[in-house]
Amino acid sequence: MADTDWPGCGKSLKGVILDMCGVLYDSGEGGGVAIPGSIEAVKKLKASDLQLRFCTNETQLNREAFVDKLKRLGFDISVSEVFSPAPAAVAVLKERGFRPHLLVYDGLLPEFDSVDKTNPNCVVIGDAAEKFTYQNLNEAFRVLIGLEKPVLFSLGGGRYYKEGDGLALDVGAYMKALEYACDLKAEVVGKPSPTFFQSVLNDMGLQAHEALMIGDDLVNDVGGAQNCGMKGVQVRTGKYRPSDERHSTVTADGTVDDLAQAVDMILKQRH
Amino acid sequence: MADTDWPGCGKSLKGVILDMCGVLYDSGEGGGVAIPGSIEAVKKLKASDLQLRFCTNETQLNREAFVDKLKRLGFDISVSEVFSPAPAAVAVLKERGFRPHLLVYDGLLPEFDSVDKTNPNCVVIGDAAEKFTYQNLNEAFRVLIGLEKPVLFSLGGGRYYKEGDGLALDVGAYMKALEYACDLKAEVVGKPSPTFFQSVLNDMGLQAHEALMIGDDLVNDVGGAQNCGMKGVQVRTGKYRPSDERHSTVTADGTVDDLAQAVDMILKQRH
Repeated sequence: MADTDWPGCGKSLKGVILDMCGVLYDSGEGGGVAIPGSIEAVKKLKASDLQLRFCTNETQLNREAFVDKLKRLGFDISVSEVFSPAPAAVAVLKERGFRPHLLVYDGLLPEFDSVDKTNPNCVVIGDAAEKFTYQNLNEAFRVLIGLEKPVLFSLGGGRYYKEGDGLALDVGAYMKALEYACDLKAEVVGKPSPTFFQSVLNDMGLQAHEALMIGDDLVNDVGGAQNCGMKGVQVRTGKYRPSDERHSTVTADGTVDDLAQAVDMILKQRH
Repeated sequence: MADTDWPGCGKSLKGVILDMCGVLYDSGEGGGVAIPGSIEAVKKLKASDLQLRFCTNETQLNREAFVDKLKRLGFDISVSEVFSPAPAAVAVLKERGFRPHLLVYDGLLPEFDSVDKTNPNCVVIGDAAEKFTYQNLNEAFRVLIGLEKPVLFSLGGGRYYKEGDGLALDVGAYMKALEYACDLKAEVVGKPSPTFFQSVLNDMGLQAHEALMIGDDLVNDVGGAQNCGMKGVQVRTGKYRPSDERHSTVTADGTVDDLAQAVDMILKQRH
């Protein structure tokens, strides 16, 4: 990447937000594997004067178990630094009096322990992989179609992610299936929802132009951050595909080989 | 229904096209059950001077097995009168040199016996119900995302259908899931594709204004037929829902309780 392509926030930059899967690690058997250089890159950011948060649409595990997994891979990360859709959804459900029918990974269920789930008046779906059976999706559909005003919350809206040696359908595909079947528009909780990105900025006490998002998902990470006024950089790891660099609607402020390169560029510009 | 709501094609009417599931019978355990009055209504149409065809998005069985099922329910129907998506898709595949990866009911596979399926360069999905596992949908997704120019054919585009005592997701929902994941637009073979309706009109040798479509699916049966210049009548059986009668984009030319009532209205107008 030519230096001239790098977003020119340089010394005004005060905070960095990192996507996790596909940037820090690749998922797969046994919890996945760290992407080369990413553990060291996180260390460098933590040693700098920049604020750092992690923003994930991860919904396979609750945050505690998820952070434990990342720690086992070698990352220095704490739960309070991680923003994920389930806690954001719980806040929305309670605020608006919704009782969800849940179609999510079993590992995510503890996040919803405090929510009334009797006599559901909405559906919440997250990435559920093998749990996306016809029967389970049909059950969610029947709950929605039986409601006078069906409401669907989707924990993220991703198209697909990288899983081991291939790509895997993400929750967004199933969200679209239910949207079409029920003739409704889902409310996305998580990236690329502006509300979600804003909650991360609020936590850092920063304005959008002071923050940079780094992710492997052009639309949800880069485009989502840009829609909030942040700069967005894409890494060529994870679900990155060469065609992303000629996408019809989203153009990254910069594209780098991996997180290690991104962090080197960021820190170089500050000195 | 007031007489004034009935489509005024009366004596100019030369042919009737009937949807099958939800009009003739309700699907369910053991092949389903005939809707009261529908066997007699088909007999009355056959005894009239009107041409009659059956137009279904049925893709659970090949036509022979499907017609056998209908005969067992008591209907006087032959294979040559039935138009369904799989044979139409086979014609398209051969004409355009496509080798499909198939995600369809096992019972439909014989329809594709004559098609080369090695080294797939497109995906064909039909209603597959229990076969719509995460693994199978992901496999179809991976074929598509691996193609330079991914092409998806969908055997129908229905949202849902009535199955026994409830509603069940139809192929259209899964079509939307793959469309979104692969950022493409599927080609629908079957209703509501104008090509499909036109092939039925051609077989009868009729102009669109001489034909009437009767179905339970407001968008795919009624709206699809109307888009081709036919009149479209909805029955209040099958997947009909009261909200269909205040749909934002499709208004039926008539709405009747069931096929028996529709046929009585048709025949009454002709005398």
